[in-house]
Amino acid sequence: MGDSIYANYPPPLTPAQKQYLVTTIKDWATQNGLLVRPAPTFVPKETDPSGVLATNAPVTLFPSPFPKSCFDEAKALQTVYNQLYAAITCNEEWVGKIMEDLIDVDDFISHLWKVHLSVKKEGYAQSLSLGLYRSDYMAHTPSTAEKASLKQVEFNTISSSFGGLSSLVTALHTDLLNSPPGNPIAYPSHPLFDSNVPPENTAVETLSAGLAAAHNAYGPSKATPSLPTCILFLVQENERNTFDQLALLRQLTKFHKIPVFRLLSSEILDHTSIPSSNPSRPLIYSPPHSPDSKFEVTTAYLRCFYAPTDYKSERDWEARTHLERSAAIKCPTVLNQLVGSKIVQQVLAETDGPDHLSSFLSGTDSNTIARVRETFAPQYDLSSSGRGREIALNLNTAMNHVLKPQREGGGNNIYKEAIPDFLRSIPESEWKRWILMELIKPPSEAKNVALRSDGEVLGGGVIGELGVYGTILWDQADGKTLHNEQGGWLMRTKAKDVNEGGVATGFSSLDSILLY
Amino acid sequence: MGDSIYANYPPPLTPAQKQYLVTTIKDWATQNGLLVRPAPTFVPKETDPSGVLATNAPVTLFPSPFPKSCFDEAKALQTVYNQLYAAITCNEEWVGKIMEDLIDVDDFISHLWKVHLSVKKEGYAQSLSLGLYRSDYMAHTPSTAEKASLKQVEFNTISSSFGGLSSLVTALHTDLLNSPPGNPIAYPSHPLFDSNVPPENTAVETLSAGLAAAHNAYGPSKATPSLPTCILFLVQENERNTFDQLALLRQLTKFHKIPVFRLLSSEILDHTSIPSSNPSRPLIYSPPHSPDSKFEVTTAYLRCFYAPTDYKSERDWEARTHLERSAAIKCPTVLNQLVGSKIVQQVLAETDGPDHLSSFLSGTDSNTIARVRETFAPQYDLSSSGRGREIALNLNTAMNHVLKPQREGGGNNIYKEAIPDFLRSIPESEWKRWILMELIKPPSEAKNVALRSDGEVLGGGVIGELGVYGTILWDQADGKTLHNEQGGWLMRTKAKDVNEGGVATGFSSLDSILLY
Repeated sequence: MGDSIYANYPPPLTPAQKQYLVTTIKDWATQNGLLVRPAPTFVPKETDPSGVLATNAPVTLFPSPFPKSCFDEAKALQTVYNQLYAAITCNEEWVGKIMEDLIDVDDFISHLWKVHLSVKKEGYAQSLSLGLYRSDYMAHTPSTAEKASLKQVEFNTISSSFGGLSSLVTALHTDLLNSPPGNPIAYPSHPLFDSNVPPENTAVETLSAGLAAAHNAYGPSKATPSLPTCILFLVQENERNTFDQLALLRQLTKFHKIPVFRLLSSEILDHTSIPSSNPSRPLIYSPPHSPDSKFEVTTAYLRCFYAPTDYKSERDWEARTHLERSAAIKCPTVLNQLVGSKIVQQVLAETDGPDHLSSFLSGTDSNTIARVRETFAPQYDLSSSGRGREIALNLNTAMNHVLKPQREGGGNNIYKEAIPDFLRSIPESEWKRWILMELIKPPSEAKNVALRSDGEVLGGGVIGELGVYGTILWDQADGKTLHNEQGGWLMRTKAKDVNEGGVATGFSSLDSILLY
Repeated sequence: MGDSIYANYPPPLTPAQKQYLVTTIKDWATQNGLLVRPAPTFVPKETDPSGVLATNAPVTLFPSPFPKSCFDEAKALQTVYNQLYAAITCNEEWVGKIMEDLIDVDDFISHLWKVHLSVKKEGYAQSLSLGLYRSDYMAHTPSTAEKASLKQVEFNTISSSFGGLSSLVTALHTDLLNSPPGNPIAYPSHPLFDSNVPPENTAVETLSAGLAAAHNAYGPSKATPSLPTCILFLVQENERNTFDQLALLRQLTKFHKIPVFRLLSSEILDHTSIPSSNPSRPLIYSPPHSPDSKFEVTTAYLRCFYAPTDYKSERDWEARTHLERSAAIKCPTVLNQLVGSKIVQQVLAETDGPDHLSSFLSGTDSNTIARVRETFAPQYDLSSSGRGREIALNLNTAMNHVLKPQREGGGNNIYKEAIPDFLRSIPESEWKRWILMELIKPPSEAKNVALRSDGEVLGGGVIGELGVYGTILWDQADGKTLHNEQGGWLMRTKAKDVNEGGVATGFSSLDSILLY
């Protein structure tokens, strides 16, 4: 076991095999909407002023092996994680204490917290809260002798993306493994391919069902006279990942028969309103293309406003506040977004001090709580002397760690041997701005080949990250859960020289998995 | 009736409505594979050397009105047309006589005829023949007072395209008419939209079922040892209309579970072979990406070799002959392709001389034969004195006609008042190279708006052409029909200033229809 399975995977390709796979994947992606809008570095605006062009999402040619035990565990724990993050969000006092520490190091957190406080002061008009979450993991494989274990990288509480495209990558790899029917030869033969396909991926169905649950729980129109209801997707300008969102929109429209509109975050204040005379504060959407129509928004699904860069001016903060004070069910609320901060993950993982995890999961059996705790990578705050500082300043122990800025949307992690010197180069008063985390070690021999969105095909060592989707709808007033489901997953595979995000010299691709 | 319905259609759009429709259609087309590869005039090769980019197929923003009586008639006559063109193909002697006249005016026809003769001499190895046809019509509406009648523009016996994309345009317009569910507001209101959607479009199912019928009728492998069987799509280099073809491929793979491969016409001789020792002449395909695999081709589906420009050298003619002499069922055979020539349409329409139509449809009732004849626009050959020459040389009668070159793939029609002077400017001996056809008059007030593949949005007066798909599988040896179906349709809408094909200054778009 361990990572020996990766030694001869994927099977090598002849030039003709590679050409066939790349051509087939290019065409499949285009036929089935596994697409993104091209980056301006690839297609300059002047070539395509109307923005009609699309290109394949970055995808691996092969599915990646992933330990079945880790996959099963991630799926098994997702509804517990949903419950955990809902419970934390319900404890506004606890969240407030944690945020207090962050307010002077992080403008963004500080600004979000202020939005929450101002709406709290007025009184929230909606007590239901919807979470569309994705918990990201690696299969921690410190040596080939040890069994891989599941370790959490991060937990996303806002704009958890790629559910739509991930389902398509699963279908792509499944089709290739079965192509042509009866005599599969799209891939060279490999033992891992024998009667094996990726596990079912219900990301689109699960995420859409979460939004539909909120829509239905909203109840009848609160407007006078009453209005037809809709779900509103709030989206970024220059979004390139449109087709990921549209997969959910199609499912909501075709299967759930729910009206859905997309609205740019910059146009929220232009096309939505809250009648000042109505104490229920319904959020009214007036589609610009149909001036005589009005819809009442049951659910505001944010695919924007997650990063500091999404707030370009005070008007964006105003728009966020406008949504927050409305009666629409927010996915997520500001509070639920804050609970997705790195610091919450770190506080939960702390081994000294109070057992927050058990408190939040008070209704859960201790074995399950232990299994959740097992997914935490050790992480430390550096605000005061203690185990964290000891590890960080010792070259031998630092080697096994990464230093991450507390600040959200920051980037710029410091790795391994660079940690002690880095800390010594900044004033000790600044150390509290950083979290030290034990490195998660994915299988060291993992390899794959990717087709990038610009058509480049690159292969080499990779790091894979598995995300599992979950949705929860709860009542913030009494903590009652109305809907709690898991389903669907995402495999993202990055070239090894890429530490975060995708960069032009490597690749960061959507992938699927074959369990072993 | 007549074309009064066109007077206030489509409803005018505000800028916001137009923007919404264009954005929605752009995104819908991309999400659902209603795409083409961009023309090199739009995206230069150096911008996208790997050819990953795609763009929306040219589509109209609105479905076009079409008279229900004409649509129903076109559907009702399609299996009769299938039978007619199969019957003509079975009468090789009759076809030969017609081709004889053309051989000195048309190199292409002459070359095809030679391929047929050489394979006939050796003896055909396959007596089954498959036709995937499309009969193209206009709703002839000479005045608003008269009821529209159905007139045939042409009958396609090879590479009848757009079935895959046409189904998608039907789905697009249907979705827009119903969007959002319960409160449709994507289009401004218009009486024609009330509870009205385009008729069902089964083009993908019908065309694929035709190919599947041939595949199944081929029977067991004729190779020794026996091989798995497949359908082979023969395609052009630099094909931009790939996703139209892939819609059929997906249906054959997913629904019929039949292996399908695509092969460039230029690579036929590299990757297919006919074992010289096997008198059954099976066509063996060796996929270059799987050197150890071999498949036997039951059905060779030509999406190439239809135009003179598809034959760049003697090697292409060799490849066509190679396919023709194999045991694969051809869609179509050379003979069936020749029967699709304009001259056959003209001979059938001749009112002087023998009643060819009744002879070929001897098993069909006279009423149905009369209805088929009713779809012919009057047309005349100009090889000798008679009605044709009279009409063409008189300015008053010429005004109502078009002069088309006999030569296939020619283009350059001569219209109306230009006809008499044109004929007088060329030697009388050349007149036999032309056919005179009465002009079909589509509704004069028809208008629509199109989104081109380069993102331009253009509106104005249009001419619409309805195609109806049919498939027939017959035995050329005894004329017996094994499969004869109609289903699916295509609406193509061209800007009025465009006489043939699409040109950059206007538009030629895929469309759907609303019956009235």
